[in-house]
Amino acid sequence: MQIEAITIVGGGLIGASWAALFLAHGVQVTVQDVAEGFEARVTDEVRRAWPDLVALGTARGDLPLDRLCFASDTARACEDADFIQECGPDRLEVKREIISRIEAGARADTVIASSTSSLLASDIQQGAHNPERIVVAHPFNPPHLVPLVELVPGRQTEAEAMGAARAFYESIGREVVELKRDVVGHVANRLSSALFREAVHIVAEGIASAEDVDRAVMNGPGLRWALMGPYLTYHLGGGAGGFRHYMEHLGPTQAARWADLGEPELDPETINTLIEGVNDLVAGLGDVDPVARRDAGLIGLLELKRRIDSGDGQS
Amino acid sequence: MQIEAITIVGGGLIGASWAALFLAHGVQVTVQDVAEGFEARVTDEVRRAWPDLVALGTARGDLPLDRLCFASDTARACEDADFIQECGPDRLEVKREIISRIEAGARADTVIASSTSSLLASDIQQGAHNPERIVVAHPFNPPHLVPLVELVPGRQTEAEAMGAARAFYESIGREVVELKRDVVGHVANRLSSALFREAVHIVAEGIASAEDVDRAVMNGPGLRWALMGPYLTYHLGGGAGGFRHYMEHLGPTQAARWADLGEPELDPETINTLIEGVNDLVAGLGDVDPVARRDAGLIGLLELKRRIDSGDGQS
Repeated sequence: MQIEAITIVGGGLIGASWAALFLAHGVQVTVQDVAEGFEARVTDEVRRAWPDLVALGTARGDLPLDRLCFASDTARACEDADFIQECGPDRLEVKREIISRIEAGARADTVIASSTSSLLASDIQQGAHNPERIVVAHPFNPPHLVPLVELVPGRQTEAEAMGAARAFYESIGREVVELKRDVVGHVANRLSSALFREAVHIVAEGIASAEDVDRAVMNGPGLRWALMGPYLTYHLGGGAGGFRHYMEHLGPTQAARWADLGEPELDPETINTLIEGVNDLVAGLGDVDPVARRDAGLIGLLELKRRIDSGDGQS
Repeated sequence: MQIEAITIVGGGLIGASWAALFLAHGVQVTVQDVAEGFEARVTDEVRRAWPDLVALGTARGDLPLDRLCFASDTARACEDADFIQECGPDRLEVKREIISRIEAGARADTVIASSTSSLLASDIQQGAHNPERIVVAHPFNPPHLVPLVELVPGRQTEAEAMGAARAFYESIGREVVELKRDVVGHVANRLSSALFREAVHIVAEGIASAEDVDRAVMNGPGLRWALMGPYLTYHLGGGAGGFRHYMEHLGPTQAARWADLGEPELDPETINTLIEGVNDLVAGLGDVDPVARRDAGLIGLLELKRRIDSGDGQS
């Protein structure tokens, strides 16, 4: 089915970023919220995102503000939607309440995709009229730049909804990773949390500073992780013998490291140590605006990857 | 002290990559090894690395092959060295034997920096004549491209050796991360192992495929990790309230994820599952040469970061 109109429920940062991306792909977008002044804030965010989308080649021409509408009533806002992107607060009772308002207006077969980062699809869909069309579609911040969408079914989700959601996100250039079942943190945040746990251990134990942990990541393994994940990395680490050779020769080294990894607690003392470390890190940034640097870096990186993956080399 | 001559002990891939980097900085390089034909292999690798170093602006002009020498006798090769980069096999008894041969020739105050990824500086330096000048200086593969050097003292290492090693690596454009003490896997490989452990859990439990885990990393958090580490990432995630706000609001979410992380075993069944997953991933690469893609990507990424960090924006 052709998606011509999308309703975004929740006009915070994530909702606004989705709105910019959907507008860039020629879709009619309605953003629903009840917060005072959200229309102006969403419009500002969309305006801010537009030049990035143009730089990436995702958007062309002027921002089509005539295709961006606002609404306060959830049910009515969802009546004509071909697809619904839910971006409300990540609290289960609030989420279920939002879903029930969406279902009061939406057609029975319209896919409802929740942007939740911390809730499970199975929990969100419980008690819904049509739980089979509810999926989790978790983006990474900011969604208009970072291509990943994690698509997760709940226990009651049907394959048709997953297929329709996948087809839609792929049609707007997203890299869809489909989970077989829902787990806490989906995939990417589980991996991020595993890395962060060890980063906390290293700083809490006084092995290295927070600033140095960050420098190690972004000047070392992080450079590769922008280009490939851990499996291909270790496959290449195995040389001609590939991943099998790596596991035979360095599997025991990995296992020894796993056994030595930390299990820190986020107690007040540890949190204070981390905050002091991050304060030092931030002081070291000087005049740099880290958000502008991140977004310029992401755009450059996405352009670079398109170039190397299209076979144009470095030219 | 000005480093004018370096001896690299061990002419494998890491040694050859260090050689190319040192040559690019105008140093006289001697590579010692006893393997049949290592001179030709090192020369080939250095030739292969040179255009990348020129592209990065690290090297200028033609490869100065007249500054690259080879030797088979370790002690003699180290006599005139101002700095020694040890790149032998990562087995403790072999390492100690190599150190003893190096010390038989080297001046008593020449820094000996081991490239070891899995051994501890304290273990390597045990039994040495001058343990105070032995450090670990662990690069990331390939060292001539990836800027990170993890500098680690052993219990007997003196601050003077750490300072001299840091000054040298910084003079050749390396990003030095100094550990306060030696731990298994230093910093970057501990973080990589933490991420890999969860990646193994996700595939072993059938939550997502190896290919999809890799896609999640390189299209999601991995893009950011090329630009910043976990601490700055979460600091920005806290908005105006920064890292403190993040920890107050999302600390419990992190802790919940930590509690849910897997502790897989690398038993034969799991290893087979992983190998099958990586085989699918590799089949999906088609005609792409992943090593050439990685190196082109690394060069482009380092150029991009230099551009955004020098304030040139995206132009």
